This record gives sequence, structure tokens and C-alpha cells, in this order.
Amino acid sequence: MTYVEKLGANAKNAEYFAASASSKTKNDALKAIADALVKSTDKIIEANNIDLENAVKNGMSASMQDRLKLDENRIKDIAAGVLKLVEAEDLIGSIDYGVVRPNGLRICKTRVPLGVIGIIFESRPNVTVDAATLCLKAGNAVILKGGKEAINSNKCLAEIMRNAVESVGLSKDVIQLIEDTSRETTTELMKLNQYLDVLIPRGGAGLIKAVVSQATVPVIETGTGNCHVYVDASADINMAADIVNNGKTQRPSVCNAVESLLVHKDIAKEALPAIKAKLDEHKVEIRGCEQTAAILGDSVIPATEEDYATEFLDYIISVKVVDSVDQAIADIRKYSTGHSETIVTKSLENAEKFQREVDSAAVYVNASTRFTDGGEYGFGAEIGISTQKLHARGPMGLRELTTVKYLINGNGQIR
Amino acid sequence: MTYVEKLGANAKNAEYFAASASSKTKNDALKAIADALVKSTDKIIEANNIDLENAVKNGMSASMQDRLKLDENRIKDIAAGVLKLVEAEDLIGSIDYGVVRPNGLRICKTRVPLGVIGIIFESRPNVTVDAATLCLKAGNAVILKGGKEAINSNKCLAEIMRNAVESVGLSKDVIQLIEDTSRETTTELMKLNQYLDVLIPRGGAGLIKAVVSQATVPVIETGTGNCHVYVDASADINMAADIVNNGKTQRPSVCNAVESLLVHKDIAKEALPAIKAKLDEHKVEIRGCEQTAAILGDSVIPATEEDYATEFLDYIISVKVVDSVDQAIADIRKYSTGHSETIVTKSLENAEKFQREVDSAAVYVNASTRFTDGGEYGFGAEIGISTQKLHARGPMGLRELTTVKYLINGNGQIR
Repeated sequence: MTYVEKLGANAKNAEYFAASASSKTKNDALKAIADALVKSTDKIIEANNIDLENAVKNGMSASMQDRLKLDENRIKDIAAGVLKLVEAEDLIGSIDYGVVRPNGLRICKTRVPLGVIGIIFESRPNVTVDAATLCLKAGNAVILKGGKEAINSNKCLAEIMRNAVESVGLSKDVIQLIEDTSRETTTELMKLNQYLDVLIPRGGAGLIKAVVSQATVPVIETGTGNCHVYVDASADINMAADIVNNGKTQRPSVCNAVESLLVHKDIAKEALPAIKAKLDEHKVEIRGCEQTAAILGDSVIPATEEDYATEFLDYIISVKVVDSVDQAIADIRKYSTGHSETIVTKSLENAEKFQREVDSAAVYVNASTRFTDGGEYGFGAEIGISTQKLHARGPMGLRELTTVKYLINGNGQIR
Repeated sequence: MTYVEKLGANAKNAEYFAASASSKTKNDALKAIADALVKSTDKIIEANNIDLENAVKNGMSASMQDRLKLDENRIKDIAAGVLKLVEAEDLIGSIDYGVVRPNGLRICKTRVPLGVIGIIFESRPNVTVDAATLCLKAGNAVILKGGKEAINSNKCLAEIMRNAVESVGLSKDVIQLIEDTSRETTTELMKLNQYLDVLIPRGGAGLIKAVVSQATVPVIETGTGNCHVYVDASADINMAADIVNNGKTQRPSVCNAVESLLVHKDIAKEALPAIKAKLDEHKVEIRGCEQTAAILGDSVIPATEEDYATEFLDYIISVKVVDSVDQAIADIRKYSTGHSETIVTKSLENAEKFQREVDSAAVYVNASTRFTDGGEYGFGAEIGISTQKLHARGPMGLRELTTVKYLINGNGQIR
């Protein structure tokens, strides 16, 4: 049995304890985790410092270093997130649907955990805690594979969580971290059908593509967002500028940030300068088509085909002037990753057309794409935004970390 | 562009027409299909005869030939099934959930089609019509890949359906059949991520395993059922005999048929002969453990480890005497495919334990596993029984052939 198979077998054994734990036990575990995280602040920072020192040595960019860094406040925030899960409804055992059939069979569709969840993620160590505790609240066992850049932080966080879970009488192995950060263990995890029920990659487009093409375990794709704003001919220009600016600059590194702007030709001359004025405050680089350059001048970098297909996650935006709402929709269907798109318009017809024909998880009218988020939708914490159509689409919260089981009770019925 | 890619591109183009078709148009298409099937009875039988002649030449077994055969009554039944779908509720556009957030954003979770569905199936030609019309009712485009044994029947049926769909103004390409029955086209279909949203294999364990291990398109596994009956110490013996007999012999070739019997040691001496008496009427072969043989005598064939893991789909059953409900559950967790299992018992404690701890899509108390079926659950027609946990588990009806899309309307909200 390999190292990864052993973790898989451990998880499979622990699965039953996670699935049958009462709400009180799961909540006690979450409270114990939150408590232990705060109490272990010094230890976590110490482990994180090793990762940060290695990051400096390896020439990691300042923004990546910032994402890797844990300090007292960030640890407090992580613990607060865990405590919020205590308040969340426990769906396990709840009945989605029930019926008594004419032959007297009583059929209940009940909610049960998925089982064992594998999560592959990149360098942000807060994901280690967020993902593990969401899985735990939903009654699952979890195997985490984080990025090598954060391995010391992750080992420390996983150890704290495992001890906390054990302190309330649950098996440690409901939370496991793959400590071997080699690529081989990731590949093995992707094919661990015997033990894993689902694999969730959290990270950039490259990671997700690799997982989808190699995994034999069912995968839920999350988190690549080449999100569009389309400014229709009838748009309120101030509103359009605010929505583009908010989508692009409020937090450029997240998946619901705007990456591409399409503007109707009849409003482009007025709208583009107004939008640019706002983006200039954040020094956003504009990569535009010829018409964009003709309107906005020399600061526009000519956009390539690739730019329109790129999730920049940075202060860069691609811009194109389009002839019609149909061209905008066609462009979105071509380049979008199916995450979030918005139309700014006063036309009811175009708003409805846009929402009907754009095939993305979240389609907005006159609002920022930044709202695609479990918390903003009122669903609570989430493990990511699903951009696929199976199982979950859009914010993946606690409900999406469960499945159903039919319980049928009779008194001897046969067919 | 290869042949399969071309079908994929056609389906992607047709997808929009299927998705935006009104309930009336979809129902008109279904009626036209049912009508054309009945009117083309002679033509279908003629095509089917070619397949049957080839089957004889290739030495196909009589039971397989029977599954392949279409006659007037079977065609009438297929058409009646299509007409039943006309009555089914159209879920597309319905709202699963809606909320107005404190900031005024109106969020609607609406039901939309999955998009393009690929279905790989074996020799039964009725699946061609069942699958295509279910997908159509749920607003999807479908690409069908049937077995080579039924290719003439399938071509004829697909042509009839395509013409019928076109006669009501829908694109023919919402239904397409891969006419090249080589293995290569199946392999290509499994990796057609650019065009396919989901792949549903319908068939034996070998087909499903091949698809799961090779496909990069998301797969929903359906239809392998190594279903168990556990006869508890407190069981009503007559009920147990009826439930085993019904599960094994009422229709042995289907996925919810019983394949394995576990009997508590304290009741085995009384229960096994009573069960055997019923099974003997259907000449069921018993492959049992040593204790089974000690009770039932020489007619019992010694069971191998493999027998307990086998879905016979035939008049064969594996039997084991177990020491406890816990051993029964452990055995089921080890050998089951996660389809349907039942306990026969008078003990509330054991009934609840069994339903809680057995991790299958449908877990019964005192009823036949043969009820795991969309129609029997009151859900209407289904495309199969999902034995996986993602997206759908248990009967996969029209709802499971759809996904969701969030529509969010605001008046300029930003974060």
C-alpha cells in the first residue's frame, strides 16, 4: 500500500465516524478547532515564517508572499470563519422529499455526506482550514493536498485540527493532509477511486485542466472565472463605470473579478472614457481592439486573441467594441469560463435575452459580478464556485458537499 | 474535424434550440415521434430483422436475441412511453429558490438543461428512443452511441426521430446517432469535452468501468447492481422468501434484481430451505458458503470470492450465512455496487442500523429491491439508476437531466 493509498484507507475508515457524528459533536469539533487555532497562534506563525523564508529565497512575488502570509489577525479571521460554521444548519439526515406510494411503501429521500472528499489547492494556507471544516460540518472525511510553498504552515494547521477533532472523540483521520508535496502524490490522489468519492481542485486554470484530464475520480471544477461585463447601448454610463471598476479593481485576484469588457458601438465613445477614468485610478492596463484604441488613444495595448481568453487576476482588462447584444453573447459563449457575466442596460428585451442565452453559472443584470459568492447569496461559507453543470453550479456550500440516499420502508412489498 | 467532432459541433449548435424550445414545441416533437414510430412499424421491423439475422449468424444467445428484438407490440410500448413524457412536468425555467438580498439584489436559482448529453449503451434498441426523448423533454441535445448488434435498428429509429423533431420546427441535430460503431468513436466521445456536458454509460459493469477510467467528460455511472437481501434473525420467514424470490426471479436481467443473499445464523436452518423452495420453482442456481451447503445439501455450488462480487443478471444467487447484522453490513459495504439493498427483520434497532450504515443509493426495510425505479418511486421515466454520489443518486429522471443557473437582477449594486 502506498502512502496515498494508506491515507485513503484511513479516510474510508474515518468516513463512518464523520457521517454518523451528531450535530453537537461536529460543532464541538469546530469550536475546538477554532479555539486551538487562536491558542496556537505563535506556533502557526513560526511554521508560516519558514514557508515565507523559503518563498523569499525562491524569489516568490510580493503578492504571492502576501497570500501565503499568516499573522495574528488572519489567524483570528480563520478561527472566526470556523465558528460561523457552528451556526450553519446541519443538513445531514434531513429529508428532501418523502412520499407514501399506493402500495404502502414509504420512500424518504434523505441527505447524507458525500463520503471522502479530496481537495487539491495552491498556496493559500487558509484554504486548509476552510476546506477541512466545511467538509467536516457536512459529515465528510477529507484528504487535503496543498501547495509545497505552504507545506510547513499546512502541516501545523492540519496537526492542530486533527488534535482538536480527536479531543471531542472523533477520529483524527476525518482530516488528513498529504505531507509529501511531490507531483506524484497528486497524480495518485486523482486516481484513488477506491477510496475517494469526489475531488475538488481549487486553484488556477492550469491546475484545474490537469485534474480534469487526468482524474478518474469524479471532479467538481471550481474557480476559473473569465468574467465579462457587457455595456449595452442603453446603459447608464455611470452605473456601467462603477460595475466595471468594482468588478476589476475591488479584488482583482478572485475568480468573480471582471476580466473582459464588451461595449456596444453606439455608446462606446461616451462610455469607454468614463470607464477608463475610473480604471486609471487603479492603474489598470487596457488591452483593447482597434476601435477601443481609436477612442481611448495610445495607452491602449492591442489585444490578442489570447487576451480575450485570459483570466488575468491582475490590474489588466481586455476590451472590445461590439455591434450588438448578439455579438456580445456570442463572444461570451466563445471566451467565457461559465462563471459570472453581467449586462448593464436599460432594455428589458436585452436584459432577458442576455440572461436566457448566456450559459454561465451566474448571469447578472445591472450588478457587479463580484457578488457570486456563497455569503453574498445568503448561503453561508462555500468551498468554491462550480463552473461545471453537474452536481453543483455556482456557489458550492454545505448542501453541495452532501448527496442523497433513499430509505424505503415496507411490510413485505414485492413486485 | 473528425466525424465525432462534427456530431459534437452539430449538437452544440442544436443545444440552444432544444434549451429554448417551449413546452408545447417539445411536447409536439414527442407526439410526432410517437406517431412516426407506430406508422413506421414495418420499416423498423425490417431494419431490426437485419440485426437479428446478423445476431443468429454471430451466435448471439437466445436471451440476448430477445432483448434485441422489436415487434409490433414492443414498438407500441416504446411509443406509449414517449407519449407518457408529454404528460410529465417541464422543469426548464422553473425556479428552485429565490431571494431578495438586503442590498436589493434579486437572486433566482432557475432550472436549465445540462446542454449536450452523450449516451453510450449496449444492444437494446428501445434505449435509443427512451434516452433520446427523455433528453429532449429536459431540453438537451443528445448524441447516442449504441451497440453494433443493433446498428440497423438504431439507424432506423434515429432517422424517424430526427424527421419527427424537424417536422415541428426543431433542429434535427438535437438527436444524433453515431453510425460508426467502431470502438474508436466511443473513445473519442469520452474525451469530447469541448462539446459534451455529460456522458451517461448504460450497460454492464465492463462498459461502465471502461468509461469511468477513460472519460475526461464528466460521467454519471448508472446501472450496475450487486443487490443484497439480508435476512435478519428476527425475520418473518415467508416474507423473506417472497422478497428474495421476487428480487431474484421476477426479472433477473435488470440492475435492481437480487444477486446475493445473507442470512443470520440463528435463522438460517429454517429460512434457507423455505427460500430455496421458492427459488427452485425458477431453477435458480445457488452458490453458497459451507454453512449454506451444510443446511441445503449437495445442490449448492461452493461460492468463490468472485461470486460474491458478481452481478449475475441470471438465475444464479450467491448465499452466505453471517453471524450478525454487523457482519452483513460489512459484507455489503465490501461487495455492493451501491445500488439497492434490503433487510428483512422485525427488529427496529437492526432496521435503523441497516439503513444508517449501508451506503447504497436505496436501502430497504422489508421490501423488494425491485422497487428501485423511477416509475415505482413516482418520479416517472428515468434514464437509469445512478450508483454514484455526485449530481444524482438513485433513479435519474427528468430533473437529473437538468442543472441550475443563477439569474441576478440589480440596479447598479457593487461591492
